[in-house]
Amino acid sequence: MTADLDDLRRAFGELTSLHGWAPLQTPRSLLLALTGRVGAVASLVQWEPETGPQAVSPELRDELADCLVYLVALSDALGVDLVDDAVTRIRGAVDQGRR
Amino acid sequence: MTADLDDLRRAFGELTSLHGWAPLQTPRSLLLALTGRVGAVASLVQWEPETGPQAVSPELRDELADCLVYLVALSDALGVDLVDDAVTRIRGAVDQGRR
Amino acid sequence: MTADLDDLRRAFGELTSLHGWAPLQTPRSLLLALTGRVGAVASLVQWEPETGPQAVSPELRDELADCLVYLVALSDALGVDLVDDAVTRIRGAVDQGRR
Amino acid sequence: MTADLDDLRRAFGELTSLHGWAPLQTPRSLLLALTGRVGAVASLVQWEPETGPQAVSPELRDELADCLVYLVALSDALGVDLVDDAVTRIRGAVDQGRR
Repeated sequence: MTADLDDLRRAFGELTSLHGWAPLQTPRSLLLALTGRVGAVASLVQWEPETGPQAVSPELRDELADCLVYLVALSDALGVDLVDDAVTRIRGAVDQGRR
Repeated sequence: MTADLDDLRRAFGELTSLHGWAPLQTPRSLLLALTGRVGAVASLVQWEPETGPQAVSPELRDELADCLVYLVALSDALGVDLVDDAVTRIRGAVDQGRR
Repeated sequence: MTADLDDLRRAFGELTSLHGWAPLQTPRSLLLALTGRVGAVASLVQWEPETGPQAVSPELRDELADCLVYLVALSDALGVDLVDDAVTRIRGAVDQGRR
Repeated sequence: MTADLDDLRRAFGELTSLHGWAPLQTPRSLLLALTGRVGAVASLVQWEPETGPQAVSPELRDELADCLVYLVALSDALGVDLVDDAVTRIRGAVDQGRR
């Protein structure tokens, strides 16, 4: 599979609609959900060596995936064009670094 | 612009190479960087009403963009296929919710 | 000075009252504020070696202090007896580890 | 019980010694552990109303307690006098606010 963020948006939209979760998904709730998933990633690597875990557990993959889900949902809820902004920002830093 | 995550990876790779930052970008350092940016987002909405800020400030857009940069860099550093995992995970939740 | 958490509560109560901030200090807002300060600590050590910074900067001390302020305020807002709970919890883990 | 932070330090020291955990407790590991517990608190209130949960669950109490454990351990590992710093900081903000 080579999925993109629009596939993710479609799937998340279906899940939200299926459970009637839209009213819950305020920006602050989505941000707390993102905080929770980043915290879960931290819990999974907190006692690991600096290079990180040798093998990435399914649980760690799931938590990283959930971070993306909530980051995209939060950005969409705020009307932010996340990927374009990120590329513009990094491109700007590259140009500045080259001067 | 309609950028995708590969554009972001290319730009971030250039920035990393320009500054010689690769040795710094261990999984745990990237995770702390992600934690920092999520925290910055939280700081920007901590006293806002539940619906979030009326207007999204450039600073908030920048911090969300940085969250994506570090989440993608962390996942890449761990060899995780972030978007595919996220779509598979949400599709699975949709299928389970339909049963 | 050898301050304790009640000194902190008194000082924070004065600050809150001085600025009329009480209505802002809902549990979720205080939690976002805590998330923000933990993120700021992460930002300050994200590229540091594993042992942490050689010298602790005033900024890092301030951010750690703010983490405590918001953690205590959040717990108080929820009616939780934070220190007693923490000691009971760790004592329980010690007893369990000894068995 | 009216425990204070020194009781907590003693109990945490015993637990650490019992399990031989001292080498694991680097500043960055303790910070990731703190991030994990703050994330767990966020997960427990992410879909709650703004006022927070009506009743505080034992799980939420435990996570808040763990936040304190790791925040104190992190500050001690960095040689920071957490409570004094926090009181000084808030007192300074009160004085500034009064001017």
